[in-house]
Amino acid sequence: MRKNKITDLFTIDKPIIQAGMAWCSGWRLASEVSNAGGLGIIGGASMQPDVLKKHIQKCKKATNKPFAVNLPLLYKHVELHIDTIIEEKVPIVFTSAGNPKVFTTRLQEAGIKVVHVVSSVKFALKAEQAGVDAIVAEGFEAGGHNGREETTTLCLIPEVSQAVSIPVIAAGGIASGKSMLACLVLGADAVQIGSRFIMSEESSAHQNFKDYLLKVKEGDTKLSLKKLTPVRLLKNAFYKQVTNAEAQGASDEELRVLLGQGRAKQGMFEGELEEGELEVGQVAMSFHKIQPAQEIVQEIWTEYLQAIEKIR
Amino acid sequence: MRKNKITDLFTIDKPIIQAGMAWCSGWRLASEVSNAGGLGIIGGASMQPDVLKKHIQKCKKATNKPFAVNLPLLYKHVELHIDTIIEEKVPIVFTSAGNPKVFTTRLQEAGIKVVHVVSSVKFALKAEQAGVDAIVAEGFEAGGHNGREETTTLCLIPEVSQAVSIPVIAAGGIASGKSMLACLVLGADAVQIGSRFIMSEESSAHQNFKDYLLKVKEGDTKLSLKKLTPVRLLKNAFYKQVTNAEAQGASDEELRVLLGQGRAKQGMFEGELEEGELEVGQVAMSFHKIQPAQEIVQEIWTEYLQAIEKIR
Repeated sequence: MRKNKITDLFTIDKPIIQAGMAWCSGWRLASEVSNAGGLGIIGGASMQPDVLKKHIQKCKKATNKPFAVNLPLLYKHVELHIDTIIEEKVPIVFTSAGNPKVFTTRLQEAGIKVVHVVSSVKFALKAEQAGVDAIVAEGFEAGGHNGREETTTLCLIPEVSQAVSIPVIAAGGIASGKSMLACLVLGADAVQIGSRFIMSEESSAHQNFKDYLLKVKEGDTKLSLKKLTPVRLLKNAFYKQVTNAEAQGASDEELRVLLGQGRAKQGMFEGELEEGELEVGQVAMSFHKIQPAQEIVQEIWTEYLQAIEKIR
Repeated sequence: MRKNKITDLFTIDKPIIQAGMAWCSGWRLASEVSNAGGLGIIGGASMQPDVLKKHIQKCKKATNKPFAVNLPLLYKHVELHIDTIIEEKVPIVFTSAGNPKVFTTRLQEAGIKVVHVVSSVKFALKAEQAGVDAIVAEGFEAGGHNGREETTTLCLIPEVSQAVSIPVIAAGGIASGKSMLACLVLGADAVQIGSRFIMSEESSAHQNFKDYLLKVKEGDTKLSLKKLTPVRLLKNAFYKQVTNAEAQGASDEELRVLLGQGRAKQGMFEGELEEGELEVGQVAMSFHKIQPAQEIVQEIWTEYLQAIEKIR
């Protein structure tokens, strides 16, 4: 339970992957997670091409361990980002929100491992057919963008693991060594953890957002905006506006206007807690502290080993 | 991982509990599960008082092992049911949907163990304060009635287990030995499994319903009727009617009229697959066969022991 297909594929020590999160995970967080023996991921979605380049270069200086970049394939600068990733020889790319057929071969021909994020068995099979090296299977409880099937991690992982023969990384609802072991028991080879790393000292989330997450209780997040693209949000003033608009039958166009531009940046990066968009997973209800990223990795790892020991 | 607080409390061999399900679990199913070393539960909610009495009497003849009755506390015949349960010396009662303060003491004074079903830490603490012997913590992925917080089993179990000191039974999304071990790793002492036991030969679900469940895919169930009482349903014609009515802003009263009487019986017991109400969990996407209840218990148990072995 220490070494497996994922630690081999990425040449990392621990099958703990820090999710690439828009506005929350830059080079500081990614390099620290990689230095701790996990895999750190730079969240490319919230970066302009020149900004991503700088983050990759700084990450390479801050760690000599493998790290990755996360890239939603529908992102407007995706071509420029891919050029940068190849140029800078980033070893691993996590893609999401788009067709994995389009860029996988090009990235792999440049020697880059490609992992695609899915929320269903159907899309897991499509990603495997597209030739990706591994998949992330993400359940309903995850923060941010999510699938329409609403399948939870507990139901999703056993089915996806049986359906594909490439390695599976579980995501959604995982923030501890116990939930890590639970997901490996279900058939995953590794876990991807997002929300808990927002609570690291090195995450680029605004301090207001981190402090707010210390007070989150059960039921405080909700899968929202199901008419457009489902996304799990904290229930702040912005959430209430879009939810009311949806309830009153707003059209997709009206919702898009209401969403506007830069709401996620405003909320998570600039700390505007009511008017901004705050994306986080259900598991935020379990957070009690902000701590160094390396300490988070170590705590999860120690708890994971203890959980194994408890079964023995 | 074989004996624990729950096997001691109920004096059973295996911490596997078959959920009491309206229209699906009578004495035949409950007695077989108990005979296999788990705990079988008669679903009292769908029975008239005289029917429940007969089921209890037949169950006692069919097994000399402990069994239980499930009782939603808001049920109209609840007082009569409780009289019958005490009279017939049923050893264990699982209560749900109501205030556990009202009947717990009376049942316990009659020598009956009381377990209450909750969907949140908040209600878990209230049940503990009411003096129940154990709780079932049920996640979002479960079939039938469900909580408003939408917390999944993976997120719920670690928090509930930490919050209370009485034994915790995990429910929602569990149908295999792997998911059983995952939940015990998360902190549960036992698992309650519903949907998979619908697929037993002994369940009183209509054959049409069982056959339909063989074809369920991911995304085919949905937490519905959130305006009234949230319930996870299969997406049939009835589901579409109530969902459209909700989307068009139907009042609670209009929804109640549309729901009418006897929809659950019509769907699950009489096999009317389109006009009836079909309650099942997300995990139905993993079903491939109908088999004897004892074989289900044994299969889950064997897979559970193998999953432990794999970690060793």
